[in-house]
Amino acid sequence: MPASDALLDAVSFDADGLVPAIAQDAETDQVLMMAYMTEETLRETLETGRMVYWSRSRQARWAKGETSGHTQAVEAVRLDCDGDTLLFKVTQEGGACHTGYRSCFYRRAEDGTLVADGEQVFDPDAVYE
Amino acid sequence: MPASDALLDAVSFDADGLVPAIAQDAETDQVLMMAYMTEETLRETLETGRMVYWSRSRQARWAKGETSGHTQAVEAVRLDCDGDTLLFKVTQEGGACHTGYRSCFYRRAEDGTLVADGEQVFDPDAVYE
Repeated sequence: MPASDALLDAVSFDADGLVPAIAQDAETDQVLMMAYMTEETLRETLETGRMVYWSRSRQARWAKGETSGHTQAVEAVRLDCDGDTLLFKVTQEGGACHTGYRSCFYRRAEDGTLVADGEQVFDPDAVYE
Repeated sequence: MPASDALLDAVSFDADGLVPAIAQDAETDQVLMMAYMTEETLRETLETGRMVYWSRSRQARWAKGETSGHTQAVEAVRLDCDGDTLLFKVTQEGGACHTGYRSCFYRRAEDGTLVADGEQVFDPDAVYE
């Protein structure tokens, strides 16, 4: 895990204290999801090497995989030019999406419709009771 | 270009009328940048096949490459499970970043520092006068 001092200083959090974090599969480069982090959950992510987000809907800390077991281990961290978006390369256990798909971006726009063409890797009914 | 009807209906714009849009290199899968779109610039993006963002700092339409020539042609469009983030696969001319790097995520966190290890593909002083 990379250390965090310069990174934490360089991140610009928005008016709600959040920064968007993109999670990309370290092996395949598939974009898995985008969610938000607070300074606190970013710090915890860097310290533990596991992705910890902030749920805007629940207004709560959200340690990815705590319920499902589908954790994301941090392999690398990147920051964009403006310092207001993070890109994490992660090793994803199981699937990133609560719907059971490997990636939250499992729908593709095609001919005026949305086609679910992603890879379903678990049964959400069996994971989230 | 995929048509847009179902996609436009399915997108959830935030309180400011914006949706984050991730641009990923269609050839290499490198994540190039993340910026925002309004419903209007998303519609224009889908109709023209060129990425058109909304600049939050300038509060203005931002047709990528209009000044620099570094356009992004849309190859595919994906929507996430919540409908609040878009993922575009694009063919990037030149570099995505105004600093001259191929990707805006040209800095990597390492040993408590930020290291610029991205590929610089143009001289920003020569492009933006």
